[in-house]
Amino acid sequence: MAMRRAASAAVKAMAGSPSVISRQLHASPGPKKIVGVFYKANEYAKLNPNFLGCAENALGIREWLESQGHQYIVTDDKEGPNCELEKHIPDLHVLISTPFHPAYVTAERIKKAKNLQLLLTAGIGSDHIDLKAAAAAGLTVAEVTGSNTVSVAEDELMRVLILTRNFVPAHHQAINGEWNVAAIAHRAYDLEGKTVGTVGAGRIGKLLLQRLKPFNCNMLYHDRLKMDPEIEKEIGAHFEEDLDAMLAKCDIIVINMPLTEKTKGMFNKDKIAKLKKGVLIVNNARGAIMDTQAVTDACSSGHIAGYSGDVWYPQPAPKDHPWRYMPNQAMTPHISGTTIDGQIRYAAGTKDMLDKYFKGEDFPAQNYIVKEGKIASQYL
Amino acid sequence: MAMRRAASAAVKAMAGSPSVISRQLHASPGPKKIVGVFYKANEYAKLNPNFLGCAENALGIREWLESQGHQYIVTDDKEGPNCELEKHIPDLHVLISTPFHPAYVTAERIKKAKNLQLLLTAGIGSDHIDLKAAAAAGLTVAEVTGSNTVSVAEDELMRVLILTRNFVPAHHQAINGEWNVAAIAHRAYDLEGKTVGTVGAGRIGKLLLQRLKPFNCNMLYHDRLKMDPEIEKEIGAHFEEDLDAMLAKCDIIVINMPLTEKTKGMFNKDKIAKLKKGVLIVNNARGAIMDTQAVTDACSSGHIAGYSGDVWYPQPAPKDHPWRYMPNQAMTPHISGTTIDGQIRYAAGTKDMLDKYFKGEDFPAQNYIVKEGKIASQYL
Repeated sequence: MAMRRAASAAVKAMAGSPSVISRQLHASPGPKKIVGVFYKANEYAKLNPNFLGCAENALGIREWLESQGHQYIVTDDKEGPNCELEKHIPDLHVLISTPFHPAYVTAERIKKAKNLQLLLTAGIGSDHIDLKAAAAAGLTVAEVTGSNTVSVAEDELMRVLILTRNFVPAHHQAINGEWNVAAIAHRAYDLEGKTVGTVGAGRIGKLLLQRLKPFNCNMLYHDRLKMDPEIEKEIGAHFEEDLDAMLAKCDIIVINMPLTEKTKGMFNKDKIAKLKKGVLIVNNARGAIMDTQAVTDACSSGHIAGYSGDVWYPQPAPKDHPWRYMPNQAMTPHISGTTIDGQIRYAAGTKDMLDKYFKGEDFPAQNYIVKEGKIASQYL
Repeated sequence: MAMRRAASAAVKAMAGSPSVISRQLHASPGPKKIVGVFYKANEYAKLNPNFLGCAENALGIREWLESQGHQYIVTDDKEGPNCELEKHIPDLHVLISTPFHPAYVTAERIKKAKNLQLLLTAGIGSDHIDLKAAAAAGLTVAEVTGSNTVSVAEDELMRVLILTRNFVPAHHQAINGEWNVAAIAHRAYDLEGKTVGTVGAGRIGKLLLQRLKPFNCNMLYHDRLKMDPEIEKEIGAHFEEDLDAMLAKCDIIVINMPLTEKTKGMFNKDKIAKLKKGVLIVNNARGAIMDTQAVTDACSSGHIAGYSGDVWYPQPAPKDHPWRYMPNQAMTPHISGTTIDGQIRYAAGTKDMLDKYFKGEDFPAQNYIVKEGKIASQYL
């Protein structure tokens, strides 16, 4: 990987292009500078030995990296021209980031990062990286595909139930000294018998549908591809080629597609107006798939009777993000993919890719988002 | 039904007992006085035409009852010597109550209720009725078995996920303008791979296990009876004859047994001390199965890492009930069985039993808790 970047740089050098940057091949020998950007845990860092995803514990790979002579800088300070990350951009070789506390890798940062070869996402979801700019620079972007799909799918089903059964206002009664069953019960439902549609039925969508099956819902899915008939039958969901036609049927919609140029802002005012009045929406994919204000307005009017997700734009969500204060929401900070179990898996997957990178070996094929300048088809 | 009561009264009358009360047989012709005790909905009553379980909508059977000449009194006022319910105790024939807003039917009330023949629970769970006193008086107690088992099982799985994944403090961050992923993630887990045990695997316990199956947990159950081997294999749970041995293995415990003399206060300080440190407990069965203070103390110490339920003792829970304020809880008022779907089913089931009562027909066998003075074996 990063070969194309080097090759392209070489071609440009030969052509005498003024923008030529000399870059090393990833497999070049010698120590590398690796920067990791993770959320800070402070007093929580030492409470659990498996809490690997925080800045303090830094995926548990510091000793391993340093024993091989590599430099490992870790920070949570990722925004603005004077942040810690910015200082290391000019000479880092590898940047490890996460979706939970995203280091936004913009075209400008890529331009400045003259030694950069590899962008690793510890987790799933690399939309905080400008993939086009990364590809144009011949870089490789990879994530730990599968590392927290189960974590996210479980969390989605939890949210489906929380909204359907009207948990949040009920819990608030409990802690506020109140007891008003009617205020909850007049709009609490069973999940059984409801129509649930997933927009996207990739790894996470399929895991969700498998877990939904015993709830006896009417399950629909929209995706670029219809499932293999045998898998579809086993999962028990019905394929809907026309997204809008599916959405109009759903009591509950779960968003399970990546954020791309095409999906950005897809759920705008017009799209939401076509949904059933009283629809429930779960979104653990990416906040920017929704039009923030349109969701806020529809939750306020009751057209959306419940919205739950743990993704926002930007992240961390500012104190005044309207989704914090709209009614009928069950929002959380971005946590669904960073359970302790998920952390153990994505720390191991990141270590494995670093090891392969040092040895000049290929990564597991499904991990590539951009491979040596070539973007995977689903992100185009 | 109520035959034995009449018979026993007749015997006592012949013996010249001073405590003899003359009671009518249920199948006696003529209008009946039926009293229903439900939670009041106030402004919520008209928001949903299927909101049948509240005092205002009164199971939707008023017109049907009154058209047959019966009297139907409905109230939410059920406590103390001057409450509305108390006024009607002396001459009511049928009392309809619910577990959500329980009308406590004590031995004293039964003694005063000289015309009483039938106690119907709109829902499941008749422990608010003194069953021994009801049986001694030859009464029939029946509930709408199965009417909200799915509702409760779904709700239990929701709570298992809420605790495992540490949802409540995460949501509080969202609404409080905070963003601290570490404070959540250091003790958020996947459900996959955990050991989940249900204490009781009757109707609700089985539905829970069926819904848990695709989550790939290690599923255990304790019950008076081992399941049929074929059903057990299909459900995929392992039978544990020794309750304490099972409890010590569980990461997550779900309480699914009725409140009886034997189960009252079962989870006391000693029992809780034997559980895994960090255990999660879900209890939608009855609050009085737990020792209130022992649960509060264990949640405060962290021995119980999470407790979620929607049952309390007494109900409504007073403003100063310690479970409202203990840490690591995800409590709600008693709502799990009173979803709109559940209400439709238990209203229909109650109407069906009233109809059979007027016609002198038997109820569905599984509905009887006390049949003409004889208590069903599992409540002894």
